[in-house]
Amino acid sequence: MTTPLQNDRLLRALRRQPVDVTPVWLMRQAGRYLPEYRATRARAGDFMRLCQTPELACEVTLQPLARFPLDAAILFSDILTVPDAMGLGLSFSEGEGPRFARPVRSARDIEQLSVPDPEVELRYVMDAVRLIRRELNGQVPLIGFAGSPWTLATYMVEGASSKDYAQVKGLLYDQPKALHRLLEVTTQAVIAYLNAQLAAGAQALMVFDTWGGVLTPRAYREFSLAYLARIVADLAHKTGDERAPVILFTKGGGAWLEAIAATGCEAVGIDWMVELGEARRRIGDQVAVQGNLDPAVLYAAPDHIRQQVTEVLTDFGPGPGHVFNLGHGVQPGVNPEHVRVLVEAVHELSKPYHSGVGR
Amino acid sequence: MTTPLQNDRLLRALRRQPVDVTPVWLMRQAGRYLPEYRATRARAGDFMRLCQTPELACEVTLQPLARFPLDAAILFSDILTVPDAMGLGLSFSEGEGPRFARPVRSARDIEQLSVPDPEVELRYVMDAVRLIRRELNGQVPLIGFAGSPWTLATYMVEGASSKDYAQVKGLLYDQPKALHRLLEVTTQAVIAYLNAQLAAGAQALMVFDTWGGVLTPRAYREFSLAYLARIVADLAHKTGDERAPVILFTKGGGAWLEAIAATGCEAVGIDWMVELGEARRRIGDQVAVQGNLDPAVLYAAPDHIRQQVTEVLTDFGPGPGHVFNLGHGVQPGVNPEHVRVLVEAVHELSKPYHSGVGR
Repeated sequence: MTTPLQNDRLLRALRRQPVDVTPVWLMRQAGRYLPEYRATRARAGDFMRLCQTPELACEVTLQPLARFPLDAAILFSDILTVPDAMGLGLSFSEGEGPRFARPVRSARDIEQLSVPDPEVELRYVMDAVRLIRRELNGQVPLIGFAGSPWTLATYMVEGASSKDYAQVKGLLYDQPKALHRLLEVTTQAVIAYLNAQLAAGAQALMVFDTWGGVLTPRAYREFSLAYLARIVADLAHKTGDERAPVILFTKGGGAWLEAIAATGCEAVGIDWMVELGEARRRIGDQVAVQGNLDPAVLYAAPDHIRQQVTEVLTDFGPGPGHVFNLGHGVQPGVNPEHVRVLVEAVHELSKPYHSGVGR
Repeated sequence: MTTPLQNDRLLRALRRQPVDVTPVWLMRQAGRYLPEYRATRARAGDFMRLCQTPELACEVTLQPLARFPLDAAILFSDILTVPDAMGLGLSFSEGEGPRFARPVRSARDIEQLSVPDPEVELRYVMDAVRLIRRELNGQVPLIGFAGSPWTLATYMVEGASSKDYAQVKGLLYDQPKALHRLLEVTTQAVIAYLNAQLAAGAQALMVFDTWGGVLTPRAYREFSLAYLARIVADLAHKTGDERAPVILFTKGGGAWLEAIAATGCEAVGIDWMVELGEARRRIGDQVAVQGNLDPAVLYAAPDHIRQQVTEVLTDFGPGPGHVFNLGHGVQPGVNPEHVRVLVEAVHELSKPYHSGVGR
């Protein structure tokens, strides 16, 4: 576990320290667009077994790193493992849509929830983290992650993916105190889960607030951001070591970047609906920014991918504090060779923005 | 057609003139949440027939007005009638998802598109507008509408609703000139269609840019906003009459309100992700603003609906220039009595914001 890190670009960029080239990793870099992922997934039988078998989770985590010169690995798992460990009974139906057998619908349901012990109910995740760290052997850092309490709550209350959030927003507008109790226990679960990932070896953390952007500004501050801030504040600092950087990402949260940056996180994830130069001007003096290529660019021809990479790099401009990523996950229909073009283009085309940094 | 308008609150508010109470209408106020709509829809057999039969389109347009003291009617139709008239072959499958038999996939497909004559291929819409105006008999104004060229293009290229816009964004990033040709012919079709609605009796117009918010800022300006501006500029002013106000609505376009307002439109629709006071500060000296209650509030109990109405009215503050609406359409699962609570609350609770205006 103490193998020195051979590539620390990600951690340096997240701390806004100089780097030789802009580090790049991609949300869902391990996923259905890779034939080797689909093969492992088929071997696992179902998606939950893939998440719950540390050897298989490790295998798919490492698959994109074997193909592309990525600067980070991200734990392969699902944000819904936490509510599953809270007793909601997660399964994935055809098309991989999540479903909870016991969704949370009433104040009484909420009272019965408790915080799982990450080394018991979520032991399989911690074993995967330990195994991945061992297998990575210092090649690149490992990012751990969790869903935001609000985002988890949407699934816990709706019981599945939702188009209009009727149930959870009904709770929000009708019984805000009950929703706060749900978010409180979920926040405690997320903090314990992320701290356990750090203890198991995660070197950076990301919190995915996938559905924060469906809230009004007032509701976002009260029901999502407040809990993101709690998570950032309550993560365990390692003694005698630098804090593992925390990246917060609210999809559709472009209006609230300043408030997200003010939580004390090290970096803010940016979707493609915000121009990266604007994001930098607004929050770049406090945090690193991660993003923000439109994932659909990966459907375009290689020349056009390189051109769009150039635009993102130009938007951010010279100097440290940028982690290249998509504005959302790699889509399943993408040609893996296009991902290679993207990753190589970031390293090649970002050199001029880091001149003077010898490595 | 020359019956004087008995309730001109909407038109006055859109022109930022004083009103006695804030006018209110709701996107999808005629729709599946109403049992009488579902009955007419069942009688029509399928959704296209409902749109294409002027008597039925008129009937459902008027249904919410028979129930609630709304300040406007909006033509019942679908944004996809325009590409259907361009020859793409629209149908609605189960669950009312749209589908085109002949989606646009290549530059060659695009070259073959032409601008339909609204009084021929879309005669059924114009007949509906004329019939609704007659039946309304000056009770409230009638709003006509169209989809934005970009939003129509997403359906025309994908052939159906899309989750990731792979095809149309592939075109955007790979063959931008071909996409511009598609947007050009669609823009001409939309302009002809809206001008025909004005000639048939529409008293205000709204352009729905439902999917502008999935674009990057740069792509939004180039592929959606530029065409919205063209539409606003090219609509026929009536001689000897005030121009029919035009409302532009880009869902997810909160970052671009200034640019939308600068097109010359009379009003900008605001989704619930922007605080209305902020919207007013940013663009309220140029245009009226319409919105922006979270549609999910209609799932809450009446007291909570009234409280949320108060918040929206407070956010906007006193004075003219506000049209109350949701930030998106009424959802099918909503209790119609909750809509009544909302509409009545707007009139009752907005009075103090318009003091001094006697009627």
